[in-house]
Amino acid sequence: MGKGRLEAFSDGVIAIIITIMVLEMKVPHGEDLAALRPLVPVFVSYALSFVYVGIYWNNHHHMLHAARQVNGAILWANLHLLFWLSLVPFVTGWMGENHFSAMPVALYGVVLLMAGMAYYVLAQALIRHHGADSALAKAIGRDFKGRISVAFYCVAIALSFINAWLALGVYVLVAAMWLIPDRRIERALEA
Amino acid sequence: MGKGRLEAFSDGVIAIIITIMVLEMKVPHGEDLAALRPLVPVFVSYALSFVYVGIYWNNHHHMLHAARQVNGAILWANLHLLFWLSLVPFVTGWMGENHFSAMPVALYGVVLLMAGMAYYVLAQALIRHHGADSALAKAIGRDFKGRISVAFYCVAIALSFINAWLALGVYVLVAAMWLIPDRRIERALEA
Amino acid sequence: MGKGRLEAFSDGVIAIIITIMVLEMKVPHGEDLAALRPLVPVFVSYALSFVYVGIYWNNHHHMLHAARQVNGAILWANLHLLFWLSLVPFVTGWMGENHFSAMPVALYGVVLLMAGMAYYVLAQALIRHHGADSALAKAIGRDFKGRISVAFYCVAIALSFINAWLALGVYVLVAAMWLIPDRRIERALEA
Amino acid sequence: MGKGRLEAFSDGVIAIIITIMVLEMKVPHGEDLAALRPLVPVFVSYALSFVYVGIYWNNHHHMLHAARQVNGAILWANLHLLFWLSLVPFVTGWMGENHFSAMPVALYGVVLLMAGMAYYVLAQALIRHHGADSALAKAIGRDFKGRISVAFYCVAIALSFINAWLALGVYVLVAAMWLIPDRRIERALEA
Repeated sequence: MGKGRLEAFSDGVIAIIITIMVLEMKVPHGEDLAALRPLVPVFVSYALSFVYVGIYWNNHHHMLHAARQVNGAILWANLHLLFWLSLVPFVTGWMGENHFSAMPVALYGVVLLMAGMAYYVLAQALIRHHGADSALAKAIGRDFKGRISVAFYCVAIALSFINAWLALGVYVLVAAMWLIPDRRIERALEA
Repeated sequence: MGKGRLEAFSDGVIAIIITIMVLEMKVPHGEDLAALRPLVPVFVSYALSFVYVGIYWNNHHHMLHAARQVNGAILWANLHLLFWLSLVPFVTGWMGENHFSAMPVALYGVVLLMAGMAYYVLAQALIRHHGADSALAKAIGRDFKGRISVAFYCVAIALSFINAWLALGVYVLVAAMWLIPDRRIERALEA
Repeated sequence: MGKGRLEAFSDGVIAIIITIMVLEMKVPHGEDLAALRPLVPVFVSYALSFVYVGIYWNNHHHMLHAARQVNGAILWANLHLLFWLSLVPFVTGWMGENHFSAMPVALYGVVLLMAGMAYYVLAQALIRHHGADSALAKAIGRDFKGRISVAFYCVAIALSFINAWLALGVYVLVAAMWLIPDRRIERALEA
Repeated sequence: MGKGRLEAFSDGVIAIIITIMVLEMKVPHGEDLAALRPLVPVFVSYALSFVYVGIYWNNHHHMLHAARQVNGAILWANLHLLFWLSLVPFVTGWMGENHFSAMPVALYGVVLLMAGMAYYVLAQALIRHHGADSALAKAIGRDFKGRISVAFYCVAIALSFINAWLALGVYVLVAAMWLIPDRRIERALEA
């Protein structure tokens, strides 16, 4: 089975997720800068989530690029990942509206954690289908960044209840770590 | 006429349907876990509908994969299916907001029933166009799962007025039955 | 310049237009059938607009299928068509919310009229680019159905202020006329 | 790395941006023309933004058409452009709701300015990857229109606080300048 429609459908869903998040930034009634002030945390959480969803699209793009075909298990592992990503707009809005208070910041981490684990499951399904000796399997490798991200999310969830800003700092740190594109897969493909 | 744009358009519509459903989960104003409690049934119905729309995308993907070309009747049979799927976010929201009371649960079943019948009509239009001896026709076969689903939806609609939770259980059962990917089409294509 | 991205972008916009219209059907708070009654006109106008947008997608699909390449003028003629189609959700919602009263029904016709004229402009831009002797030009021909639709919309706009239901009847009639797929282009392509 | 998915994802995001803007035009409750009057500035700002987003799609289409492949830096430069474009619906709604008062008109210009600079960064990333002697680099050239647009946006932002209508006039002027399609790239490709 070809991977074309899986990529097209994922592109569609991720494009919608990344765009409808902006609808949480409700247009204010006032016409001065003060009217925008309550939106600052909403904007900050929007920008953070935009980067995260962008990272997922980027990595998804790289991983599927290395794949040759898909099966039923991969289709569902992919939908499972999209499910958790589809909750990002909700937790982004909740975190922004409540100015980064403990529970919303923790729940934001939970959704990131679930998405991270869903990405891992998808990677494993792809490796199983292509074989442990495939270029794809070598490219994904031990997925050090994926594992450490999941650990960081757990730390951030715990930190939320001590100091939500520290937890937010961890989310920014993980995003920064991923912004560096995944050279491993690029290198493996070139080799 | 090629099937490429039909697939692309369907992917777009299904991607939007599966994603805008999450907009029914309105961001609560409170910042504690209690603020999320009223959203639990909304979340449950969202997750169920996500799986259902995912199943439709999956089966649509398989069926169109086996198709070679489309005609006007197929284009409209496809739009008819998308019409009923487009109502899923509405009935999902209504069912979630009313905590699975009788009428919304029944209407949810009606929309699933109409979508199931529209899928059947689309399959028949494809078979007529490709011929009863085509690989596609053999792959779709008697569509036992499709027929039994429609029967189950009718049972669930009736059950809604006796016990809505039983009806919901039937919906979960049908979804579980479909989560097992349609090996018939995969097998027929390989043969 | 290839036509691939023009088709993909148009598919995306039309898919979003056809799907976000359903968001105008706000989930009611009540849980019985009576709660749905105020939504009946909204649903009827949604179904009508779904068919209209479906017709535009269908005809757009056929026309672009016959095209070989695009230029700047065609890109903008296409965006112009998408602009008027993007107003369909707004007039659909207004017409539904006001139970088919005169002014909303007339404005609905105005948007259909503008979209019809924009489609004509796009067809002419395509013919100019491909030449009057091209298969595309022959396929589009004198576009009898397109011209008569525009005349019907004008009649319906005038009728709205006499009897809005008559105007609505004209919209249904025009939609029915288009539901029959455009065999001319199919025939010309086959020849 | 192929450019196909980058184009598809950008098409998706831009299609959603251009379409969800119309959701800011809330359906009014009244049924006469007077009910539409408060929507006139919202409609005007919607039409202006539709043209701007259309211009970006058009230019993006041309530029990527001339590109042969993409790398990580290009992916992120593209997401950066999409980020600023995703804010267009918000500033469009704010400007429309406040009838073109100073601050919203200025912020509209800021978002256009950031998008213009993001487009420049993307063009540079593409040139770096394809080489200064590539057809792409020659096609983009010194990008006179891009540079002058950025200068105009700065002027308009300053003008907003003197006379917002003058600033709006500058936005319309820049849009008109871009509506003339970018013949340089077309010519360079043909040569």
